[in-house]
Amino acid sequence: MKTIHVPVRDAYDVMVERGILSRTGEIVRELCGGACAVITDDNVNAIYGDAVVASLEAAGMRTVRFVFPHGEGSKNAATLTQIWSFLCRNDITRSDCLVALGGGVVGDITGFAAATFLRGIRYVQIPTSLLAQVDSSVGGKTAIDLPEGKNLVGAFKQPAAVLCDPDALRTLPREFLIDGMGEVIKYGMIADEALFALLCGCDLSTVQEHFDEIIPACISIKRDVVAEDELDTGLRMILNFGHTIGHAIEAYYHYETYTHGCAVAAGMCIMTRYTGNADAYERLCECCKRYDLPTAVPAPLEGLLPLCSHDKKRAGGNLRYITCEPIGKAQIRTATFAEFCRIFGR
Amino acid sequence: MKTIHVPVRDAYDVMVERGILSRTGEIVRELCGGACAVITDDNVNAIYGDAVVASLEAAGMRTVRFVFPHGEGSKNAATLTQIWSFLCRNDITRSDCLVALGGGVVGDITGFAAATFLRGIRYVQIPTSLLAQVDSSVGGKTAIDLPEGKNLVGAFKQPAAVLCDPDALRTLPREFLIDGMGEVIKYGMIADEALFALLCGCDLSTVQEHFDEIIPACISIKRDVVAEDELDTGLRMILNFGHTIGHAIEAYYHYETYTHGCAVAAGMCIMTRYTGNADAYERLCECCKRYDLPTAVPAPLEGLLPLCSHDKKRAGGNLRYITCEPIGKAQIRTATFAEFCRIFGR
Repeated sequence: MKTIHVPVRDAYDVMVERGILSRTGEIVRELCGGACAVITDDNVNAIYGDAVVASLEAAGMRTVRFVFPHGEGSKNAATLTQIWSFLCRNDITRSDCLVALGGGVVGDITGFAAATFLRGIRYVQIPTSLLAQVDSSVGGKTAIDLPEGKNLVGAFKQPAAVLCDPDALRTLPREFLIDGMGEVIKYGMIADEALFALLCGCDLSTVQEHFDEIIPACISIKRDVVAEDELDTGLRMILNFGHTIGHAIEAYYHYETYTHGCAVAAGMCIMTRYTGNADAYERLCECCKRYDLPTAVPAPLEGLLPLCSHDKKRAGGNLRYITCEPIGKAQIRTATFAEFCRIFGR
Repeated sequence: MKTIHVPVRDAYDVMVERGILSRTGEIVRELCGGACAVITDDNVNAIYGDAVVASLEAAGMRTVRFVFPHGEGSKNAATLTQIWSFLCRNDITRSDCLVALGGGVVGDITGFAAATFLRGIRYVQIPTSLLAQVDSSVGGKTAIDLPEGKNLVGAFKQPAAVLCDPDALRTLPREFLIDGMGEVIKYGMIADEALFALLCGCDLSTVQEHFDEIIPACISIKRDVVAEDELDTGLRMILNFGHTIGHAIEAYYHYETYTHGCAVAAGMCIMTRYTGNADAYERLCECCKRYDLPTAVPAPLEGLLPLCSHDKKRAGGNLRYITCEPIGKAQIRTATFAEFCRIFGR
């Protein structure tokens, strides 16, 4: 087992181990005691729900389960309210805990429920997607969407622990694996040239064998960045490499054509093409292609750039963006929107 | 102006001054800058809404206003969701702030909205009821109700400042003044014999003249208790004197017959009758009567005691309750439910 200790105010461990899912009960009981409410979606529940509940019950914990329909469409106030009421009706108290079993949607909404139910109870994350394992395990960000936009409501809440099972990714549909690889490549780009080189030597069919190494590497990078910037006021921004244009791509296509990871990959490539050297751009594109990730999008820059100015990372009229030159070393840059457009020759 | 500094992690000031409402704009602008969303209920809006908005606009702040129907019935997930969407549609960002203008319901739900919108933005409390001024100004507790019970969901969130205007209490309906006096007497009982003596020398028609003194005294007591116990794990419990039985009274009558302050007054009297000396009991009853507060309820103890065991303050099967003997000095006691019943001769 590889353990990544996250030394934030409410410190906790991310544990990465093949098969750790089946040991959920013993780990959760030791951390939390009490009773346990497993929150999951219908897809994940069908594959792992019974095993996790059985493990918790075998450890002697009273366990209840709430299952909601999979997909971003469930990450809203209505589902949250249902979870709150479910916890009440099942007598979950401050000495009990929640288990978030699923991908980013499950983790985000369960974390927010844990942050707010009875003004805060403990929760354990079991991320079952690659994106959630490398990206949501660290940072303490929880959220729901509003009709007006994504992740507009939430709280900072650290889990009591995160259990990452690389074997759980074997059942991941191919598109979700690709989606996660976009963020994995990002970690190599911003902070770890060796990780990037490893990724350049694998492809979609062989990368699974290296997850024991890749996943802890990504989590460690995020841990180091977040530990220095727990409340998201500065350095953490480098985690957004590729995201300024990536978000614009997602919005341009109404969140339908490109997954988050695909949009980020294209965003990284476009950014590197205009701000990096030719060699870095070429290596990045080659790496993305190995994982069926796009390196560009048909949408014209004229259509994307205006959408960048709505990005959350805007500070006082200025736009902040990330460049990685050389590969493995991120820099934060600030520009007015006009300057930002000039970088792209527009 | 009397200023009570609250030295919690996100420290802030409670400012008590007659007429401070009309200075809202200058104070909020200095603390928060940016734009401002005033959240209030229809009752309070009709009296103070325009003046507060005008003050904010005169200070040069872009100001929007959200008004919801008054009453505990509005303190729910539906109103909260409306507030979140209102903030989005009106472009409230992380550099802006909320103003909670009203009683406990407005303060609780606005505080929770501020704790969660964009994962937390600043807010200023302007409590307009006596209960909210003495009780909700300090503690950082925000909440909404669920169909399953009151205050079951929320967050700890400190305001950027609290503005208490004793003059705003002149328009308070008589029943709300009585309601607040229940908590005011509680502060005398648990921590301030001189305050208690002052209250024994006034009545409903004269107490208003002493609010400049009484309100800061109550807030200071709560400040001292909360500063020692920010996350509500021990000492803060003395603020619940009279509440174990008070909550049982409210529940027994389905929250319809007795206001919170009246139930707490009766709860304090019943508790003191069985755990204090005869003199303290007599003085407390006399004080409550001066403010038309009940000193007992028709409900039989047999009906109330079982409801006490559902109290949130229960810890591991034991029940914790507060006694004040002598007046001005609270103690926390622990008992099994059987022992607790024996105290009452049952």
